[in-house]
Formats: sequence, structure tokens, C-alpha cells
Amino acid sequence: MKVALFGAGRIGKVHAASIKTDPRSDLVAVTDVVSEAADALAREHGIEARSAEDIFADRSIDAILIASSTDTHAGLIEAGVRSNKAIFCEKPIDLSLERALEIRKIAASHDKPMMMGFNRRFDPNFAALKAALDNGDIGKGELLAVTSYDPAPPPVSYIKVSGGLYRDMMIHDFDMCSFLFGLPKTVMAHGSCLVDPEIGAAGDVDTAVVVLGYDDGRIATIRNSRRAPYGYDQRVEVLGSKGTLAAENEIENTVVKSTSAGVVSAKPVYFFLERYMRAYSIEWSAFVDAFVEGKPVPASIQDGVNALALAEAANRSLAEGRPVEVTSEMTGV
Amino acid sequence: MKVALFGAGRIGKVHAASIKTDPRSDLVAVTDVVSEAADALAREHGIEARSAEDIFADRSIDAILIASSTDTHAGLIEAGVRSNKAIFCEKPIDLSLERALEIRKIAASHDKPMMMGFNRRFDPNFAALKAALDNGDIGKGELLAVTSYDPAPPPVSYIKVSGGLYRDMMIHDFDMCSFLFGLPKTVMAHGSCLVDPEIGAAGDVDTAVVVLGYDDGRIATIRNSRRAPYGYDQRVEVLGSKGTLAAENEIENTVVKSTSAGVVSAKPVYFFLERYMRAYSIEWSAFVDAFVEGKPVPASIQDGVNALALAEAANRSLAEGRPVEVTSEMTGV
Amino acid sequence: MKVALFGAGRIGKVHAASIKTDPRSDLVAVTDVVSEAADALAREHGIEARSAEDIFADRSIDAILIASSTDTHAGLIEAGVRSNKAIFCEKPIDLSLERALEIRKIAASHDKPMMMGFNRRFDPNFAALKAALDNGDIGKGELLAVTSYDPAPPPVSYIKVSGGLYRDMMIHDFDMCSFLFGLPKTVMAHGSCLVDPEIGAAGDVDTAVVVLGYDDGRIATIRNSRRAPYGYDQRVEVLGSKGTLAAENEIENTVVKSTSAGVVSAKPVYFFLERYMRAYSIEWSAFVDAFVEGKPVPASIQDGVNALALAEAANRSLAEGRPVEVTSEMTGV
Amino acid sequence: MKVALFGAGRIGKVHAASIKTDPRSDLVAVTDVVSEAADALAREHGIEARSAEDIFADRSIDAILIASSTDTHAGLIEAGVRSNKAIFCEKPIDLSLERALEIRKIAASHDKPMMMGFNRRFDPNFAALKAALDNGDIGKGELLAVTSYDPAPPPVSYIKVSGGLYRDMMIHDFDMCSFLFGLPKTVMAHGSCLVDPEIGAAGDVDTAVVVLGYDDGRIATIRNSRRAPYGYDQRVEVLGSKGTLAAENEIENTVVKSTSAGVVSAKPVYFFLERYMRAYSIEWSAFVDAFVEGKPVPASIQDGVNALALAEAANRSLAEGRPVEVTSEMTGV
Repeated sequence: MKVALFGAGRIGKVHAASIKTDPRSDLVAVTDVVSEAADALAREHGIEARSAEDIFADRSIDAILIASSTDTHAGLIEAGVRSNKAIFCEKPIDLSLERALEIRKIAASHDKPMMMGFNRRFDPNFAALKAALDNGDIGKGELLAVTSYDPAPPPVSYIKVSGGLYRDMMIHDFDMCSFLFGLPKTVMAHGSCLVDPEIGAAGDVDTAVVVLGYDDGRIATIRNSRRAPYGYDQRVEVLGSKGTLAAENEIENTVVKSTSAGVVSAKPVYFFLERYMRAYSIEWSAFVDAFVEGKPVPASIQDGVNALALAEAANRSLAEGRPVEVTSEMTGV
Repeated sequence: MKVALFGAGRIGKVHAASIKTDPRSDLVAVTDVVSEAADALAREHGIEARSAEDIFADRSIDAILIASSTDTHAGLIEAGVRSNKAIFCEKPIDLSLERALEIRKIAASHDKPMMMGFNRRFDPNFAALKAALDNGDIGKGELLAVTSYDPAPPPVSYIKVSGGLYRDMMIHDFDMCSFLFGLPKTVMAHGSCLVDPEIGAAGDVDTAVVVLGYDDGRIATIRNSRRAPYGYDQRVEVLGSKGTLAAENEIENTVVKSTSAGVVSAKPVYFFLERYMRAYSIEWSAFVDAFVEGKPVPASIQDGVNALALAEAANRSLAEGRPVEVTSEMTGV
Repeated sequence: MKVALFGAGRIGKVHAASIKTDPRSDLVAVTDVVSEAADALAREHGIEARSAEDIFADRSIDAILIASSTDTHAGLIEAGVRSNKAIFCEKPIDLSLERALEIRKIAASHDKPMMMGFNRRFDPNFAALKAALDNGDIGKGELLAVTSYDPAPPPVSYIKVSGGLYRDMMIHDFDMCSFLFGLPKTVMAHGSCLVDPEIGAAGDVDTAVVVLGYDDGRIATIRNSRRAPYGYDQRVEVLGSKGTLAAENEIENTVVKSTSAGVVSAKPVYFFLERYMRAYSIEWSAFVDAFVEGKPVPASIQDGVNALALAEAANRSLAEGRPVEVTSEMTGV
Repeated sequence: MKVALFGAGRIGKVHAASIKTDPRSDLVAVTDVVSEAADALAREHGIEARSAEDIFADRSIDAILIASSTDTHAGLIEAGVRSNKAIFCEKPIDLSLERALEIRKIAASHDKPMMMGFNRRFDPNFAALKAALDNGDIGKGELLAVTSYDPAPPPVSYIKVSGGLYRDMMIHDFDMCSFLFGLPKTVMAHGSCLVDPEIGAAGDVDTAVVVLGYDDGRIATIRNSRRAPYGYDQRVEVLGSKGTLAAENEIENTVVKSTSAGVVSAKPVYFFLERYMRAYSIEWSAFVDAFVEGKPVPASIQDGVNALALAEAANRSLAEGRPVEVTSEMTGV
């Protein structure tokens, strides 16, 4: 599978490295609006930096990997569909749910694999938890709790174009809830600005709790903070009728130091690159599986729409101070 | 300090044992509507089973410990105030918030120690967490999460007279939130019947999530279930500006078994008697401290009213499907 | 069962409290060469301080609990046998193995329960490990490792009369090995003075490793240090044919603090009073069981002889720099 | 740095992959007595399978990586020295200490980096423990304990040519002790055949404990077993004057399952490939550092000799049933 990469920034570099870990896929081209970034990544991988038009026109290129800025995702998906390429797209489809629903329609007729980059589904810990849950190890799931704290907030300049915490950060946790429990019926959002007043001044929250209600009475809780000084705190816990499953943090090393000051273990790994590096690689192989072996993609455009619908509902819920229903109008299904 | 015990049931027995652990207090009498229960406990402790009237009339008795059924609490507090005794009362003051507010007024003029039995405040783990939080170990608290699952649901007959999950079970967690974060401003309740359909048929929930909002933006989340087959799951976690504090479960023993089936540790201790036995004893000593040394009681009638007000707000929130404000009308302050 | 206590020092007080926890036993008298100590303990428990002669002559006293200094143990056991009392004796029987072997003979003809205070056998963690091992949870035991560090060394004045590390401190670990694996065949001792040069000047070691070899090829390793600044380090680990059992330390509380400095848990509980308080109580009940119900004592005089024989062998091994065999001459069996 | 690989077996493949992870090194050739193995590895990496003579004669090849069978190591090192190549050699140098001492002399005059593949030194956990120890985090080290169990024994055919447990398996643990505590003065070995009687019939042990004594009184203990059904058990623990450092196992994932059967965590990762994959890569980069930047090699030929000398001493100790001194004759220093 010959792959062209859109976006040579931080996450683009991660994906470029992941593509190399699967012998069935080859990175053959890269493009970026910042041509220096594209050139640097191209040099590093011994490939060509090319224009987007050129890439879409090149029929030898089988797949595109969209890791460019969020506002370009929807357009690139459309172009990818038109030029008949397999498409892997970083989350989110778009900041606008309406636009995402349009993409959803376009995607319906595309016969190549299309996959959303919900990397956490491929984290070995969360995947093991999901497998145990599906296996009935704890009976039927009842209460789900997702904890997701970033080590430190991004610059406010980023916050301003991010679409807000629910769409930018919690979207991963919405997807985790859908991954484990399916699509909820109601969304109740709480949010505060406790970490950085400038984030509040920009109209966003940096600390948030969302409760998702399911048709059958199951309840999921998501906690987010833009700051956890001890590192990336990424945990999932499910209470079921027969027990609890909890996926704990990965830590920097296994050394434990006991002195008069206490018993000290290593911190969680610092951020998403450290925590999810393996997940990016496994995720990519799942996309190659879909292309090469025709397997279903494990994170579809519909999953991308669903997560965005939940973020949209959370925004409305926060604004209106009441639970908001997730309608079929919002998800297209 | 000479003490008379009201109630010779399960929790009465626990308190009778706790009284013995403090050399400054003496259990001298017990009463119970079931005279056999009173007689048995009296025999075990080499004391007298007496009538309530007798106890209130006996001026040599310094204090009463109310561990009888919930519907008797308020009346016994009133009688205790009238007969000028120090009063230790199991939660809740009453199932009715109005009645609790009346008691609150009566208590205001009483000059003997009055204390509510919020035993979890005295659990060494939660107390250590509270001390670290107050000490600024994690900066300013921001997100609080209380997990509280019982090992198995009580009989439905109990559920029917319990006042419902929020007043009967979550009241402890409401108090834990007040203990750690103070009185919240809003209550948003979610609840389902997932454990036992008969509980639902009785009009109650057995699985619940409540989110508390604070004036300054802090947020607390409580998760309750009437069933955790692995034992009593009692955890508290606080994210602050500089880190996280988590009080984990106490486990049956420290043995870890590693075989081809996995690495198996002991379960959490089974239920409240196992988990909070030490807490009951420490709690009692705090009451004796208040009586003997004039120290402030660490869990006041106001704390009892506050917890009940939050339960009331949760009931309304669940019924109306929206957040409910905690007003001064509800707490008396 | 009416009990007289010999020794009103630190461990005597612990036993006095334990006697109270079993309703079937009554502490009725105490004696101590320091009469002030005996008086104080007597007052605290509302009993009489009496002379040793008086106690032995009093036929209403069923049992004696020997918690006086080591050099008095053997003589008190002999007197206890003569006056036909049940006997509970703190470890060791005597510092001299020869003397212990004499006591062993005298004990053989005594028809009242005689029990050695090997308290660690009754620690719930080690008892659970033993139960799992005996239950075959890890198949057949192969490698045993006992870690036993005191938080801080005793005064050198104590060291000088202690009989040395192997007889004073490691004797508990020798008994733990016998408890779990039975009596070994060979003892190889290593020892150093690393903690306090004065201990070395007194002719003793403060850091030691002993390896025990068993007839069937099993091997046990004991590590001792007189200093572990983080608290009492008391662990046992067994590798068997199907897995490993490990009894870990008990810790002060379950609070975990995560900050930029790391993830900090509580230390192990400080010393033997904190760690083994429950064990002392369970141990006592086992002795009462033997007296009241005729059950076998779970730690016999033979167990006391065996531990002493291993200590003796360790001393010889250290002196001669070679493994020493444990002969039937040394254990009497 | 252009590298030729000797040995295309299991460990050869691991090293071939590691070479790729450092952009400064290129695998250019492979050789193996089994030409099919060499061809397969060559094809996979797009390189040539060549003869050993050819490789030594090729002056464009900078370094050789010796991952062939143990009996070829010494000869290949000699040839590598003659042809002036940097040399990375898997442990051990040779099964014969005499031969290793010859190689040591030859190595002395070689001015290219020579490094022994003691991979565990590069495990991030052990490296972090070493860094903390050297940093004085626990004061001065006193007691070292290395636990090292394989998940399952190798075939007896392997055992027969392995040189025995001390040289084949415990050599890594001897090196770990040298890495952390330096070269010991005495070796006392214990060993049994408990896992597989055929191993005993072949004259070897499968279960072993070795105690190392240091000049200054420090003591190290190594425990080995050829079988741990729960996976590769690789732990190191050091007691120092101010506390303890422990490097615990790495586990398969972080999921914890709590049910009525207990609290189950994932097992340690299965074997050395899983546990030390990162270590192999870090190790290789250290060798490239030595070649490219002239840094000292972190595991020298002398380290290889030392480990072998300790194994030799252990063999003698086991045979003679007494501690054996490590002399300068044995280590060459």
C-alpha cells in the first residue's frame, strides 16, 4: 500500500514512523502548507515532498493519511473520495457537526477503507479492557468512568482555534465511551475554568465532567482536566454486574524507592506520544488490514460523527445547564 | 463519661464495642424496642437493659448514643436535649429535611456536645487524604471523585423504608464531599435500576451518579452502586493544581499469587464493619474528646442537615431531570 | 482461663491487652522484678501485682504467660510445669541450646498446653500465604525467601545481652522457614556489620543472609538488617512449581499522592507492635483454644528448640565460614 | 557504521532489528553456518548473506556483531581483532574461563570498541535503579537481591551444551551484581534439580541460590529458577543505609479485574524478547556511541571475564560445598 501523508507536524511525524512499522505499507509522499516541514520530513524518510494536487492525481498512490490541521480534514476527505483513495483521517472530521454529517453521506458511497484516528482504541491496555468486557469477565457493564487529564494546558492561541475542550480534548473520551458502551442517549456537561484564566477569557473551560446516560440505564462519567502535573493521566474503569475492570496508567519505569519520606513509584508517562506510541502503530496496521485483507475498519467515519455529536451535545448542555438528548438528527442514524 | 445506648442491632453492637475502646467512657445502659436484643447486649457487656424513660431520667448518665432505627432519631435527639445529655447520633437525623431543620434549631441552644456518626471522616485513609489536602500537598483541590459501592444490595423490605439511595447510601458520600470540599451549590443526579428490578419496582434506584458543582468552579462526582461482588469499594480521589490524592481500598491481606492464570491480590475487605471498624473507634474517641476536653465535634448536626439537603436536592434533580440548587432554605445557613 | 503474666515491660503490656480480647481468658495477676512496672500494669487492668511464688502456689491460676527477660524463660517454664500450669512463653526458650533441649525433655511429660510465642505465624498475611501454599495453590514449594528488616537498631547495651542477631532477631525468620518448609538440613550464614560499628565491636553482625538447604533440594534464603529507615520490612515469598506467593508489607494507609515529584504511597507500618498487634491477639486465642478445646498448640516447644538449633548452626557457620548441618543432636528429634 | 552480523538465529534476528533502530548504523551483511537462516534474514533486510572470511576481508565493514553459538565467540573475537573491526559480542566470551582470559589479553591491544551484550544493564528499569543508587538516593548499598526466573526450562539438549546454569543463565545475574555492586570477593553456591529430573541427569541444576560476599561487608543474593509459570520474573532490590530500591517486573498490560475470585492483574511479560526488546535497542546505541563518539563501552570484555569468573567460582563452590574466593588469577585483575 503506497501512502501519501498530509501534514508534517508533530502528529504527522508520528504517523510517518508508524507507517514504517508495517512492512505492507510504504510512505511515498508528503505534503504540508509549511513547505520546510514537508521537505524536512521527506528528507528524513527518503521520499518526495509533493503538492496535494499532485498526490490526488497520482493513481499509484493507494491511500492518504490526513494529519493536517483540523479545518482541512473535511476537504481532504472529499478530495480523497473523489480520487478513489483509501483514507485515514485524524480526529475530528471537522469542528462543525453539519459538515461532518455531509462527509458521512459522501463516505457512504466510497468503497475504499475510511478510518478515523481514534488511537486510544488501540492502546493495549484499553483494548485488553474492552476484550475482557466483551468476553463477559465482569458480566454486563453498568457504570463507566473515564479519567483523562493532560499534563499541561496548550497555549491559549491553540485553545482559541481548538473548537473547545469538548470537541478538542474530550472527543477522545466520548469515543472511548462509544467504544465500550455504544452511543448514549443523553449528555449532561459540567465545566469550569480552574487551570488558566486566559482559557476562560477565550470562552472555554479547562476542567470538565460529563455524564452520559444510556437507554438501558447504564451511566458513563468523563473527567477532564488540562493539567495533571504528574503526567498524562489516562484511566478507564467499568463496574459490571460481576465485578470491575480498570485500566491503569502506564508508568515511566518499575522502580520503587522506599525511604523515610515514603514509598515512591515512577510517574505516568508524560503525554500522548509516550503513552500511545504503540497504539499509533497498531492503529495503522488495522488500517492496512482493512486495505489489504478487506477487514472492517475498527473506527469508522460514523464513529467520528458520533464523537462530534456528543461534543456538540456537551456544548449545548453546558450552555443551557441541562441534559441534552442525542438525536438521530445529530448522528445521522 | 457514662453512656446509654439506644439500639441493640448490628450498628448498636459496633458502637457498644467502640465505647469500650476508650477508657474515658463507660457503657452503663442499653435500650431497644426488641427487648431480647437489649437483654442480649446488656448481658454481653454486664450492664442493664433499661427503658428509654428511665435513661433520660437518670441524671448520672452523661451521654446517649442513638443507634436505633432512623424514624426514632429526631425524637431521641429532642429528648436528649431536654434531659441535657451529650448526644451522639447515627446518620441521618431524619428522612425528612424539614424535621432535620427543626432539630437543627433545637440543637442550637443545647450546650452539650452533639455529634453525627459520619464514620468515614474517621477512616485513617480518608483522614490522611484530608490532612494532605488541607496541607496543600496537591495545591488547591479541583476535581473530587467518590466511589462507593456496597458488596450486595439489602433486602427490598429495607429499601422500602430506607428513604431511597440518595438519603440512605449516598448520604455518606455527600458528607465526604462536604468534608473535603465544603457545601456545594448545585446537585445533578442520575440514577438507574440495574441491580435488582424489585428495587426499581419499589421506586428506588440502585446505581447512581451525582455531580456537585461548587461556587468557585470545583466539581465533585459521586458514583454509587448497591452491588460490587468483590467487596466494599470505597475510594476517594482529588485532583488539585499540583497533583492527585487517592485513597484506595483496604484489602483482606497482602498476599499476591502469581500463576499462569494471572497475578491475584486479595479483595477489598467485605463491608462496612470490616472497613470502618477502626473508624468507629476513632469517631467515638472524638466524641469523648468533645465531652471531656471541650473540643469541637468533628461532625455536627449542621453536617447532618447538609448531607440531608444534598440528598433532597438529588431526589428533586432525578425527578426533574435538571440540576437543583442548594439553597440556604435547605441547609438553614 | 485465669492467667498470670510474668513481665510488665513492652511485650508484657502487649500480651496483657491481647488476653482481654479473648472473652474466655482473664488476666488475674502480674509479676515483674521491677515492682513499679508490675504495679502500674496491675492498676491499669484492675488486677493484683503478686510475687512469682505466690502465683505458682495459687491453684486457681490456670496458665502463665512468660514475657519476662530471656534469661528467666527456662526457669519459669520449669516452675510452671512443676505447678501444673498451662504455659505460654515468648521466644526464645533460652539463649543456650543445651538448656532448651533440657526444657524440651521436661515439657514432654507435661500434660497442659505449652506454646511458644512465634507471633508471625499468626499474622493474617503470612497465615494466608501458608494456607495457600498448603492448599497447593502454587504446586510444590521450591524457593523460599524471607525478608526481615527492623526499622532501626536497638541500643548496643541490648545487643550485648541479646545472644546475637541469629538468636535474637533471625530466630523469627528461622521459625517462619520451619513454619512454611519444615526443618532444613543445612545452614550457611553470612553476616556483616554495616549499620553500627559498635555492634561489630560487641562481636555481633547487623546485616545478615542465611541460606537453608532442605533434604529434598528446596532452598530458603533469609535476609536481615537492623535498619530500614522506611519502617518494618516483613515479607515472605515462595516460588513453587506452579507459581509464586508473596506476602507484602502492611502500609500505614492507602493514600497515594501523585505530583511532579513522583507517585508516593505510605510507608510500611513502623515496627512489630504496629505490624503484629492483630497477630498477638490471634496467637493468644490459639493458646486459649488449646486450653479450652484441647486443640494442638500451633507453635510448640519443639518449634522453639528448632529455631534455636538453626540459630546455633548459623553462629557456627558464620564462625567457620562453611555450611553447618542440622543434626538430630541439635533438635532432639 | 557498517555492521556484519554473525548468527541468524533468534538472538541474531533481535540484533538485526536493533541495528535498524539507530540511524547511525547499517546492517550490510549476515553469515550463519545454517545458510538458509542467513539467506532468510538477508532477504528480510535486503542485504547479502556472505561468508565469514569475506566479511573479515571487507575493509568497508566497520563492526561485527557476534550472535552465533557460544563456542564460536572467542574465535570470532580473535578474527575481529585481527581484521581491526569494532566488536559487539553476545555473552559469554566462552564457556572456558581460561579461553576468556586469553581473549582478555588480545582485547587489551585492540583499539576499536569491544562490547559484551549484557542487555540487562540497558533495561530502563534496572538502569533507573542503578542511576538512583549511584545518586545516593538510598545512601550506601548494603544488601542486593537479584531474582531471575525463566518462564520454562529449555530442552535438555540445550542444557547439555549450555555450560550449566551458572554459566548459561546466572551469568546475567552475576553481571547485574557487578554492575550494581562491583566485583565480589567470595561466592557461595547452592543448587538443586527441582524442575526437570532430566536436567539433573545431565549433571546440571535448575534451581539455584548464590550468595556473593564483598570486601566491605556488602552481600548480594541471586535466586534462579528455570521455571516460573507466570512469566519471566526479573527483579532487583537493594537495601541501602537510607532505604530500599526495587525494580519490579514489567507486566503485559495495566488492566486490573476485580471479581468475587479476587483482584487480578496482568502477568509479567513472557520472556526476554518481550522484556528486553527496548534494552537491546538501547544497548546497541551505546555501542554505536562508542564507535562514533568514542564513548567508553558500558559493558567491556573485562565485564565478560568477571561474570565468567563468578560462574566458575559458583561451579567450584557447588562441587565443594564451601565458599570460593574470587582471585585475581580468575579475573586477570
